[in-house]
Amino acid sequence: MYNFKNDYSEGAHPRILDKLIETNLVQQLGYGEDQYAHEAKAILRERLNNPAAAIHFVSGGTQTNLLIISFLLRVHEAVISAKTGHIAANETGAIEATGHKVITTETIDGKLRPEDVAEVLAAYALAPHVVKPRIVYISNSTEIGTFYTNEEIKALYKFCQSHQLLLYMDGARLGHALTAENNDLTLATISQYTDVFYIGGTKNGALLGEAIIFNKPELATDFDYAIKQKGAMLAKGRILSIQFLELFKDDLYFDLARKANVMAMRIAAAVRGKGYTFLTESTTNQLFPILPKKVIERLSLNYQFYIWKNIDADYAAIRLITSWATDEEKVTAFIKDLQEA
Amino acid sequence: MYNFKNDYSEGAHPRILDKLIETNLVQQLGYGEDQYAHEAKAILRERLNNPAAAIHFVSGGTQTNLLIISFLLRVHEAVISAKTGHIAANETGAIEATGHKVITTETIDGKLRPEDVAEVLAAYALAPHVVKPRIVYISNSTEIGTFYTNEEIKALYKFCQSHQLLLYMDGARLGHALTAENNDLTLATISQYTDVFYIGGTKNGALLGEAIIFNKPELATDFDYAIKQKGAMLAKGRILSIQFLELFKDDLYFDLARKANVMAMRIAAAVRGKGYTFLTESTTNQLFPILPKKVIERLSLNYQFYIWKNIDADYAAIRLITSWATDEEKVTAFIKDLQEA
Amino acid sequence: MYNFKNDYSEGAHPRILDKLIETNLVQQLGYGEDQYAHEAKAILRERLNNPAAAIHFVSGGTQTNLLIISFLLRVHEAVISAKTGHIAANETGAIEATGHKVITTETIDGKLRPEDVAEVLAAYALAPHVVKPRIVYISNSTEIGTFYTNEEIKALYKFCQSHQLLLYMDGARLGHALTAENNDLTLATISQYTDVFYIGGTKNGALLGEAIIFNKPELATDFDYAIKQKGAMLAKGRILSIQFLELFKDDLYFDLARKANVMAMRIAAAVRGKGYTFLTESTTNQLFPILPKKVIERLSLNYQFYIWKNIDADYAAIRLITSWATDEEKVTAFIKDLQEA
Amino acid sequence: MYNFKNDYSEGAHPRILDKLIETNLVQQLGYGEDQYAHEAKAILRERLNNPAAAIHFVSGGTQTNLLIISFLLRVHEAVISAKTGHIAANETGAIEATGHKVITTETIDGKLRPEDVAEVLAAYALAPHVVKPRIVYISNSTEIGTFYTNEEIKALYKFCQSHQLLLYMDGARLGHALTAENNDLTLATISQYTDVFYIGGTKNGALLGEAIIFNKPELATDFDYAIKQKGAMLAKGRILSIQFLELFKDDLYFDLARKANVMAMRIAAAVRGKGYTFLTESTTNQLFPILPKKVIERLSLNYQFYIWKNIDADYAAIRLITSWATDEEKVTAFIKDLQEA
Repeated sequence: MYNFKNDYSEGAHPRILDKLIETNLVQQLGYGEDQYAHEAKAILRERLNNPAAAIHFVSGGTQTNLLIISFLLRVHEAVISAKTGHIAANETGAIEATGHKVITTETIDGKLRPEDVAEVLAAYALAPHVVKPRIVYISNSTEIGTFYTNEEIKALYKFCQSHQLLLYMDGARLGHALTAENNDLTLATISQYTDVFYIGGTKNGALLGEAIIFNKPELATDFDYAIKQKGAMLAKGRILSIQFLELFKDDLYFDLARKANVMAMRIAAAVRGKGYTFLTESTTNQLFPILPKKVIERLSLNYQFYIWKNIDADYAAIRLITSWATDEEKVTAFIKDLQEA
Repeated sequence: MYNFKNDYSEGAHPRILDKLIETNLVQQLGYGEDQYAHEAKAILRERLNNPAAAIHFVSGGTQTNLLIISFLLRVHEAVISAKTGHIAANETGAIEATGHKVITTETIDGKLRPEDVAEVLAAYALAPHVVKPRIVYISNSTEIGTFYTNEEIKALYKFCQSHQLLLYMDGARLGHALTAENNDLTLATISQYTDVFYIGGTKNGALLGEAIIFNKPELATDFDYAIKQKGAMLAKGRILSIQFLELFKDDLYFDLARKANVMAMRIAAAVRGKGYTFLTESTTNQLFPILPKKVIERLSLNYQFYIWKNIDADYAAIRLITSWATDEEKVTAFIKDLQEA
Repeated sequence: MYNFKNDYSEGAHPRILDKLIETNLVQQLGYGEDQYAHEAKAILRERLNNPAAAIHFVSGGTQTNLLIISFLLRVHEAVISAKTGHIAANETGAIEATGHKVITTETIDGKLRPEDVAEVLAAYALAPHVVKPRIVYISNSTEIGTFYTNEEIKALYKFCQSHQLLLYMDGARLGHALTAENNDLTLATISQYTDVFYIGGTKNGALLGEAIIFNKPELATDFDYAIKQKGAMLAKGRILSIQFLELFKDDLYFDLARKANVMAMRIAAAVRGKGYTFLTESTTNQLFPILPKKVIERLSLNYQFYIWKNIDADYAAIRLITSWATDEEKVTAFIKDLQEA
Repeated sequence: MYNFKNDYSEGAHPRILDKLIETNLVQQLGYGEDQYAHEAKAILRERLNNPAAAIHFVSGGTQTNLLIISFLLRVHEAVISAKTGHIAANETGAIEATGHKVITTETIDGKLRPEDVAEVLAAYALAPHVVKPRIVYISNSTEIGTFYTNEEIKALYKFCQSHQLLLYMDGARLGHALTAENNDLTLATISQYTDVFYIGGTKNGALLGEAIIFNKPELATDFDYAIKQKGAMLAKGRILSIQFLELFKDDLYFDLARKANVMAMRIAAAVRGKGYTFLTESTTNQLFPILPKKVIERLSLNYQFYIWKNIDADYAAIRLITSWATDEEKVTAFIKDLQEA
């Protein structure tokens, strides 16, 4: 059985393990003050073209979301998310547990546009009987495999700026977005057109770890208190910083994401080749092909994946995820099995 | 400069890194459902002599404390802690951030006894104008190096049982307690005489990781929701379970802690040999010697440690911590420097 | 200008003020332990045909909702509400501020049915990545003027019972529901087929006050702590208990609600008489007639009401609310103005 | 039995009830937008000599405290209080329930001085492992009957200003402080030397109600959202505003408090006359005389009061509270009984 269920079935890219071993017995300060953290942050700030960016490393995506959102909101403020957004759909009420409503809105492709946000603002006008929207949360790539263009981000940011809203991008799969075909965003443009975002490591080659970037450092004042308070400050912070040091000291992060996308695109081409369609048009590492149930049954004998959505009596959509660690031969085998099924 | 400031200056015991490498590309289920988790839990349950114990692995101590305490308390309930307890003194209001008061009480040695708890109950009798004490939080070893005996734990547990209180032991440095001279507690007796406790990995050879043990599994129902909600569920849970698999598949965990204690006791003997005294009587890996300030100054040239408390114009107490990774030669050198200072 | 915007534009029924004056200088215990509280509870328990019911008086509806819901839920649990439900639409994130998600679902008439709840349960099956539904929140009468029948409540309660869900009824306008034409529920049947509910005083003749009823007293253990903690325990609790003592010592509560309904039904008949329709079919004291905008404009010169929803270029729905204090002559005048507009 | 247990055993001053009756059927906007609110605020702003002050009326003291403190603090910030402070001692963890630690400090007389606060700041220096103190909470009069002088408040405010701390005064019994012998504070000086405070109505002649004053209106932006969210916004806000309109349209508020103080001072003189001492030196309406237990027993036959603290085998301190409604003849009788006991 080969696993296409997610992009965290394996450990870390070997270079990261090598670095952990190489530095293992070097004494370092704890709680994020290790030298690798300083090095990794310096590299990232250069990539961001933002020397003032405030950067923190924590271990996972839900943790990152709840940390940032609860830190930036006042008691009566709320966050806006697509209904498919991770904070709305898959984090066990993590944001609400910090005291804040997640306002959701339907979208066609998992992406928020200025008009979506404008609609929410109109619906939340009856102050003080409703919460006050303050953060716009977006994911890039989205939970259904789509990504944002430069123009879309700029338009959304401009709207947020003019409506006293903060724009926050969840980058759990940012690498996959930035290496997708037709992408025109970069870390530097994201740093310019969002208030805060994170670069996901866990799903792209790291053992664990997400890099939180406050593009406007004044938003980050005292954020270390919050990291400690929410239980997100690792005593051995070096574990986190070493991931990002290795991933960004050259182009490893992007190479790994591109590999995942390429594997997905090979599968996507085969799906199309057989005349099947998709639930959402994805050019990143998450695919949602709609297949005959008999085909799904056959593939299930050798591959693990989620049945995502029932379509009708004969068809269902499945979710396939590739990663930096996906075995090319297994992809070839999957395609063959698909074609023969 | 050699670092005696804490027990998390280095990485992990090499066997753990070896295992991470060995298993790196084996596909595993995420979110704590990996096979190593099942293996590590089976080993631990045997050590605990408690086949029903519910076990979860998370990444750090503050996270563990806030998870357990917020999960077990209802809105109006509170936790009792020694004033020196980690949840009261060093966790940035992590418990309060989940909505609960930490009731503190002065102790002579960082340990809670039935009479301390009884005093708190008496002081919190004016229901409903005060919170309702529900959990007794203790640390073993304590934040000042002392540890609990079997008899003390039994007495405290019996008191808790008869007053509808839950007993929770923070085991961030449990290994050091269980391998201290004159200790008579075991994992099995702790499992018998507490409701919930955790075995600290981070400060005893792990890269990261704490093992939460609900001795009464009915207390743990739905606890995985809480782990996810508080951002403590690692996608690659294997990182955590592998730590405990290696530490407990033989006696590594205890060997490492014993090594730390032995190093500390060598230093303690040298301190006593020079006629100096201690702020607290510790037989574990945290020492609080009271030294002349001139001596402290001299030692500061070569060693890092915290100045813990000013005593008078001439003396201060410092905190020295040893660990599984402490270099014996550095200990020898430190002792020599102390004797010559 | 006459106000049809809400049912809290006036003070209290004169009998309540009389009783406040009559008892004003009698010394009473504070915090809800006054003799009037005991008397009012005894009367209510008899009406409920539930001698064991635990009853508490607090000052307002949002307060009641957040108290009950936060008290009954554990950290990972959530409440299900119609999208139009007051806790979802009009309470400034009060429930989320206590740490819990409000799961909303679309309804046709503001009422939840077993199939609505079943759909939510199906959508929230991916434990532990989603919250765990635990309370079903309904309003009777609903925020759009509809009410529940005996059969509907029984079916919903049965479903809740068989799915480990608690059923909670918000009775801000319970009097208007129970005196509506064709209603077949009573306080006694509600006490039998819900776990907890409240009887709203504020919108039906009281100065302030809602009576919280735990039909199963074991759910209420320690609830007084929560009342104090959330700032809902009035020092002079007598103010609250006197409201309910007067409203329920005879049929005043029902008489006042019936009066409000009768006034509304007179207006409704006039609306229908002119050939206009309604946004929702209400037989209680909230009406949502769809009127030509020119008519609305004319009525606005003499009456206050909310423009509820734009329908098209020519029509909009307005909300009219009547109450125990509505002036019959003003209703007559309004009808005349409507007919002539 | 006559009740000296508290100052909320009776209802309201008759003038307030008269006004409630007089205005009962006048239609008013809800949620604090009634005309009486505007009138009461205008009167108060004049008294405060602060035309910009932002004023809100809510129903009780615990509610007020949790509203203000949770609104002004960010997640990692805390409030400092004397150990005897109401938020620390008698509010069922209300502040912690909103996510914030209450840092307590021992005092000799229930009052905080700059040196007390400085000590807390020193003890909370290890950022980010401890919370960040942000609000200094004081009560005037204190929970043990003492009050602050103009000079004390000025010194404390100056200290707060220079340490980025907000100064918040709980005025549950502010009237009693401001009319105590030797008091030199006024509403205007308090408005000048605190950031926010409240004027307590419940314990000084109102049925219910506290007036929250933000002396710096920029601190109050959006505060109405918080009032609604915490369940503190009464639909019929007129009930609250009418209390303050009556109490402050002339000197009723101060007259009532003075009366309470005078009654207390008569009792205090009798206590001293008999050679007894006090637990705390109070010149306001709360007295803590230390009496022989036999005397206490005798008095208990005719009067209700709290036994506050055991002193030794023969003596205990009791708490006696007088109010605007205290019956002078009962005071005379009590004194006689004390003298004869």
